[in-house]
Amino acid sequence: MRFSPQVKMVEVGPRDGLQNEAKPVSVAIKVGLIDRLTEAGLPVIESGSFVSPKWVPQMAASAEVMAAIARRPGVSYPVLAPNMQGLEAALAAKVDEVAVFAAASESFSKKNINCSIAESLDRFAPVAEKARAEGLKVRGYVSCVLGCPYEGDVAPEAVVAVAERLAHMGCYEISLGDTIGIGTPSKAQALVEAVAAKLPVAMLAAHFHDTYGQALANILAVMELGVAVVDSSVAGLGGCPYAKGASGNVASEDVLFMLNGMGIKTGVDLDKLMAAGEFIASALEKRSGSKVALARSGCLG
Amino acid sequence: MRFSPQVKMVEVGPRDGLQNEAKPVSVAIKVGLIDRLTEAGLPVIESGSFVSPKWVPQMAASAEVMAAIARRPGVSYPVLAPNMQGLEAALAAKVDEVAVFAAASESFSKKNINCSIAESLDRFAPVAEKARAEGLKVRGYVSCVLGCPYEGDVAPEAVVAVAERLAHMGCYEISLGDTIGIGTPSKAQALVEAVAAKLPVAMLAAHFHDTYGQALANILAVMELGVAVVDSSVAGLGGCPYAKGASGNVASEDVLFMLNGMGIKTGVDLDKLMAAGEFIASALEKRSGSKVALARSGCLG
Repeated sequence: MRFSPQVKMVEVGPRDGLQNEAKPVSVAIKVGLIDRLTEAGLPVIESGSFVSPKWVPQMAASAEVMAAIARRPGVSYPVLAPNMQGLEAALAAKVDEVAVFAAASESFSKKNINCSIAESLDRFAPVAEKARAEGLKVRGYVSCVLGCPYEGDVAPEAVVAVAERLAHMGCYEISLGDTIGIGTPSKAQALVEAVAAKLPVAMLAAHFHDTYGQALANILAVMELGVAVVDSSVAGLGGCPYAKGASGNVASEDVLFMLNGMGIKTGVDLDKLMAAGEFIASALEKRSGSKVALARSGCLG
Repeated sequence: MRFSPQVKMVEVGPRDGLQNEAKPVSVAIKVGLIDRLTEAGLPVIESGSFVSPKWVPQMAASAEVMAAIARRPGVSYPVLAPNMQGLEAALAAKVDEVAVFAAASESFSKKNINCSIAESLDRFAPVAEKARAEGLKVRGYVSCVLGCPYEGDVAPEAVVAVAERLAHMGCYEISLGDTIGIGTPSKAQALVEAVAAKLPVAMLAAHFHDTYGQALANILAVMELGVAVVDSSVAGLGGCPYAKGASGNVASEDVLFMLNGMGIKTGVDLDKLMAAGEFIASALEKRSGSKVALARSGCLG
């Protein structure tokens, strides 16, 4: 196996994670979480979402959160900004990076953001253009890359098409999301091979869910192809909206444990990351979704 | 990645799993579990342990269990038989395969089986010899291959030495146990490379615990080196005796989900395997340790 000696960990817990938690948390808790993640050394911390609070009430206070966090120079704190209104709010909040979110499955796109894939991309294009004109970085997400809760299998070509559009509108990084965690290592590799045939592999991020326990194996598999950006969520925040009680985002602690064990540099401190995980699990009054956290809180020390 | 097109799944739930569950289960439940696992198509089902009930009360009724299960021709139902007394009992129970259990760490050997590694191997040698003379297959386990709860790191050379001794006393298969689940993919590969330099890789089984969430990634990593035998435990039975609330054996359902997704043949039926997992989780009144089981019992269907 040959891997990049360094992996960029993109922490999505404060946004993608908390958005999918049933229990709402206060601005103070969100700020406490993000500040702890900064302390842990994460280079990118997805921190909020400028969408209508009608659709995502959990993210209504994103401007307050962005105003209160202690931003560390060199660390990026992206927010979702799916439309011009969102982008304006993001600019007012002085964010340095925004993200747009497309799907590789028509049914998912319609159910999740109420428009077709093509419509969503047409809507994102001017957002990305203006964001870049204002000096912001733009990250693109593609969801359902290894399967759709409504359509089942998703063809790699469908993912490639969306990823290319996002890249051509100026996204510097494309996060490939296995939204329902149904992927397995050879499928994850086939997908990355297909996308990497059109875009530099250095632009690709693995955003794999652990719903079926496959996330780390899938991450390992695509790291073998040169992927060196991994999205994860501290304490496994988020769960799976499609299967009650099941896992969603892979836990950052478990990803970091693997990378540390393989001698791959991340700049992230496991103890401080675990402290952030304990903080938010305690605030949510739930058991951590990280196996490393559960093992360490046992008697192994 | 190049993998064996076929993997042998060795189910250890009824013995290794149930032995580490706090709640004892009746002979009837054990038989119900083993029969369901047979129905699911597992080729090897570790079914009991002929050790002193003073040490392992959970396994006291192994003779009754072996007498009651519906054995399918071609399926092996190994039992642990660590000494001559155990072997005699196993022979009386008409088992077809026995297993012996050594450690790669002196401290673990002393704490777990109350003797040095060398003493344990000296004790197993005549057991293995007589078992083979009686026509039984003998499987050897090595525990703590990637770390020890008392000593920390374990050198691959220590594992190689024990594995070689077990092979030379007639074990047809050596199961490499990451007893505390501390391994990561590159370490797992380095270990298998070291052992495979001395023994055929076809003799090696991966017995990796999921305590730190690494098991599937580690299994994938050693499958890349040709390992084609994987130990696992239905519903993740067993937990981790070294960290309360943490995971132990990797769940068979999650292993099978990965292998199925990769097109690797096992002969095991996922739905029937999940039914066996639901049966025993319900008997133990606990949540399954399989993420696949949790996802499937949610709304994804």
